[in-house]
Amino acid sequence: MTIELIPVPGLPEIGEGDDLADLVAAHADLADGDVVVVAQKIVSKAEGALARPRPGEDPAQARRRIAREQATRIVADTDEVLVTETAHGFVCANAGIDASNVPDGALSLLPDDPDASARRIRGRLQALTGRDVAVVVADTFGRPWRMGQTDVAIGVAGLAPIRDERGGADRHGARLEVTEVAVADELAAAADLVRRKADGVPVVVIRGFSWEPDEAATARLLVRPAEQDLFRRGEKP
Amino acid sequence: MTIELIPVPGLPEIGEGDDLADLVAAHADLADGDVVVVAQKIVSKAEGALARPRPGEDPAQARRRIAREQATRIVADTDEVLVTETAHGFVCANAGIDASNVPDGALSLLPDDPDASARRIRGRLQALTGRDVAVVVADTFGRPWRMGQTDVAIGVAGLAPIRDERGGADRHGARLEVTEVAVADELAAAADLVRRKADGVPVVVIRGFSWEPDEAATARLLVRPAEQDLFRRGEKP
Repeated sequence: MTIELIPVPGLPEIGEGDDLADLVAAHADLADGDVVVVAQKIVSKAEGALARPRPGEDPAQARRRIAREQATRIVADTDEVLVTETAHGFVCANAGIDASNVPDGALSLLPDDPDASARRIRGRLQALTGRDVAVVVADTFGRPWRMGQTDVAIGVAGLAPIRDERGGADRHGARLEVTEVAVADELAAAADLVRRKADGVPVVVIRGFSWEPDEAATARLLVRPAEQDLFRRGEKP
Repeated sequence: MTIELIPVPGLPEIGEGDDLADLVAAHADLADGDVVVVAQKIVSKAEGALARPRPGEDPAQARRRIAREQATRIVADTDEVLVTETAHGFVCANAGIDASNVPDGALSLLPDDPDASARRIRGRLQALTGRDVAVVVADTFGRPWRMGQTDVAIGVAGLAPIRDERGGADRHGARLEVTEVAVADELAAAADLVRRKADGVPVVVIRGFSWEPDEAATARLLVRPAEQDLFRRGEKP
């Protein structure tokens, strides 16, 4: 079955207190089964998850300072990059804090609880439209070993973020080996294809993807537990 | 603009010497600008990039042995997983060797040169259909820090695998910070959404994505050079 990646154009600049679901419902014609992928940046803006540099501090300095203050683990710290583990468990550069597409020199922080953000947006969308949709909150992360960034899921609501195919058989009857597909990350990555960072299309509707319902979904399932992670070197601060 | 992810159904079981482009052209109605995402597994089968366990060796043992023989670096080696750097520079479990969807107990190896595979398929598709398409060869890799696997690009033809947005400005005129988008990996991940590993849909057409032409494209641009990689621990064997 064909899947469509549909950008939602025309959203206004988002400010603290804005109702994202209301704006999405007004600008998109949702259908049952859609996955609504929302960029972290507008979730943080709507929730007021912003910070400001101190007087005399430039944005890059402020970002490193705040990332370090928030870190539960310093994974790498060089002149070029600070990689930390956040309270959510995400491992990313500068704790996901950044300064692009934020007005007036402010910095956007990650939402306190991106799953809760996704659940709120999903609940409101269902109330407003009557449609049963899933929601993914996406952010742009780098990765070890590979160049460039891709979008990944930092919050989910309604859908299982990982599809477990263990125990399945391939077309020859052999046991499937690659068996836990990070579908929420693949949804986030797919949504990123329909926009450039500069063009202000922070919401994408994915139509036709057959997701597995999960009312207790959490993107924390996408976080490898530190004790199982061969590559999460670094120390608690 | 909406992007479509279109599965190509009905492909037969692939064997050594099969002309993948001929099969794709017969089963898909391609348009100019399409990206054709082809699973590594059928590329390896068509190219005969297979290996067999030695007598008395089970597939998992054989996979580890061959992965170790092919490794340019052992990145991690535990009871549960062997992560190596391959001759291509990819860092992945078991050198990308696996046993699912391969007949008769054989193991599929990565293609020798997945960019060359992609170029051959692209050239043949253009000759057969007259369409200007790009080709991505995709494989399923795990990743540090996050659970589950996603598909990534191991070979590309026709399109720039990374879109460099450095120097761009956001909607507030600020310099964009997240600026190198691994679009080939996002294309591979998106394609994976339309199939399950078990269902035998190894080719997906992505329609409507605005790619940057690059006649000298190589997926090696997606490989972080080891000397810039903070997380490629391990030694040359």
